[in-house]
Amino acid sequence: MKDLDSLAGVVELRHGAGGRDMAELIARLFVAAFGEGGEEDQAVLALPPGRVALSTDGFVIAPLFFPGGDIGSLAVNGTVNDIAMGGAEPVALTAGFILEEGFPLADLARIVASMAQAARAAGVRIVTGDTKVVERGKGDGVFITTAGVGVVAGSLSLSVRGARPGDAVIVSGTMGDHGVAVMATRAGFDFETEVVSDCAALNGLAAALLAAAPGTRSMRDPTRGGLAAVLNEIAQASGVGIVIREAAVPVHPAVRGACELLGLDPLYVANEGKLVAVVPPEQAAAALAALRAHPLGQDAAVIGAVRADPDRFVEMETAFGGRRMVDWIAGEQLPRIC
Amino acid sequence: MKDLDSLAGVVELRHGAGGRDMAELIARLFVAAFGEGGEEDQAVLALPPGRVALSTDGFVIAPLFFPGGDIGSLAVNGTVNDIAMGGAEPVALTAGFILEEGFPLADLARIVASMAQAARAAGVRIVTGDTKVVERGKGDGVFITTAGVGVVAGSLSLSVRGARPGDAVIVSGTMGDHGVAVMATRAGFDFETEVVSDCAALNGLAAALLAAAPGTRSMRDPTRGGLAAVLNEIAQASGVGIVIREAAVPVHPAVRGACELLGLDPLYVANEGKLVAVVPPEQAAAALAALRAHPLGQDAAVIGAVRADPDRFVEMETAFGGRRMVDWIAGEQLPRIC
Repeated sequence: MKDLDSLAGVVELRHGAGGRDMAELIARLFVAAFGEGGEEDQAVLALPPGRVALSTDGFVIAPLFFPGGDIGSLAVNGTVNDIAMGGAEPVALTAGFILEEGFPLADLARIVASMAQAARAAGVRIVTGDTKVVERGKGDGVFITTAGVGVVAGSLSLSVRGARPGDAVIVSGTMGDHGVAVMATRAGFDFETEVVSDCAALNGLAAALLAAAPGTRSMRDPTRGGLAAVLNEIAQASGVGIVIREAAVPVHPAVRGACELLGLDPLYVANEGKLVAVVPPEQAAAALAALRAHPLGQDAAVIGAVRADPDRFVEMETAFGGRRMVDWIAGEQLPRIC
Repeated sequence: MKDLDSLAGVVELRHGAGGRDMAELIARLFVAAFGEGGEEDQAVLALPPGRVALSTDGFVIAPLFFPGGDIGSLAVNGTVNDIAMGGAEPVALTAGFILEEGFPLADLARIVASMAQAARAAGVRIVTGDTKVVERGKGDGVFITTAGVGVVAGSLSLSVRGARPGDAVIVSGTMGDHGVAVMATRAGFDFETEVVSDCAALNGLAAALLAAAPGTRSMRDPTRGGLAAVLNEIAQASGVGIVIREAAVPVHPAVRGACELLGLDPLYVANEGKLVAVVPPEQAAAALAALRAHPLGQDAAVIGAVRADPDRFVEMETAFGGRRMVDWIAGEQLPRIC
């Protein structure tokens, strides 16, 4: 296992064969970074009391490294955020790796270190995992699928079905940073240094929001499909309409500029460290203040409101005073952005 | 979504884009089969009291369909079994799909139906999932990563570190059926009709074993790397030696014949519906009887014993009276067998 010692080698099929080579890869790379797992095929945890939230997310991003993160931090934060959006405190994650033969072990080590760091930052443990290796040309470097558990305290019940006419629609910050950072890296654009992914764990921000606005109806992180997808999902599931104001949607100037160059609409671009919350009107001010008081929510804004609409339309009042439909994304705008 | 209605189409990048096409794929294929999930990004469950077991497993098998199962049943049973081997009753699974552009939707529907059927048979729910699509040539049809939670009742504590000298080593049935069934299919051999994967959920069998032999030290399902890997893992982690008797290891005659043709050793070939248990000697008879009374354990056998050995060797008394080392698998014997 000289190649693992030096991390100068590459992933080979034997690393996924269930023998000594796999055991050593797991011990020297994964267990060393995550501080647990490895010997048992399952982790056994004593969870705090409460209902258990369960979520999973797969990551097939290209390129694997981008300004503000990499597939490792993304894989941790993505599942942490899916759990947190259910009102749960994330506790533990699993990590499943599908490696392509020939992938550099040094890159894998960098990704695994990034996962460990993201897990520490989010306050979760990576307790168990799995590694498979596919032949060259049957994968693309590394795919990671994380799953996780969290605990929902008390009787909290957030749901994409919970929005009611009159509710405020709040975003926790600027839209489109992650997707544009990845696309810019992929295209080799110069502005990539200005645009950085917002990849971050949202459990702290979500907890602050729920403490200030316990009547919150729904939280969701606008990843694939962007803000437009989340608003349509809420409108569809809740049987309501939503109207947002274009001028109220925060977009970083560099992201806006990049979107114009790339022909993208920030409303449809993925975020990895932002949340959308639907909050009853009487708690909107408290929710906004709580978000803005948190380092990840300084640009939070009320962007619109829920209204009765049997057609379940999402509409936007444009900067010019008109109104246009905000439909779901059509086709594939940004492949493999997360 | 005409192609989804008829299931005559193929997976396209738009099915992973986070928009309407993805929502419809999820609703019509996954939610329709699993009966839940789809709208929320996480599932919230009220688990029975006890510690929570958490496990994950990725599946990259080729071919996707084989005698006795497919990647779908494998993905459910694999994680169910990892949870059950920890002494937990599996409750809920997550399912993450990584689809290759161009993969036939009809095949995906068949796989998803197989997952739903396997989950019903195992008594678990598939509560949430994720779908990603990669470009043609960047994947291989479909990869599935499942994760799951189960509940460990009482103070039960099984561990790969638990084996002690004098303990009996028991297998629940014939070795090598799964790996040989897959390899035979891959090779296009005629005997494939005789050799059928043992792919099955072991939670019922494991519960029966633990009820009869509550002192059981360790359970493990011998998948990748086969029986040899599991015995070496136990010996290594427990700091003991293990001696098995070749004549006592059950191997189906057709599997033995296929192994001879293919140049394989059944001790190193993957199983997907068998368990290895280390049981204190005074409970071995009860354990064996309980396994044999279960439909999945009719061929159960005591194959050897744990002994003190600072070298942690696994050895086998051969049919000819000699003794040979049973080392870990070296290199890659059977790529993508699970």
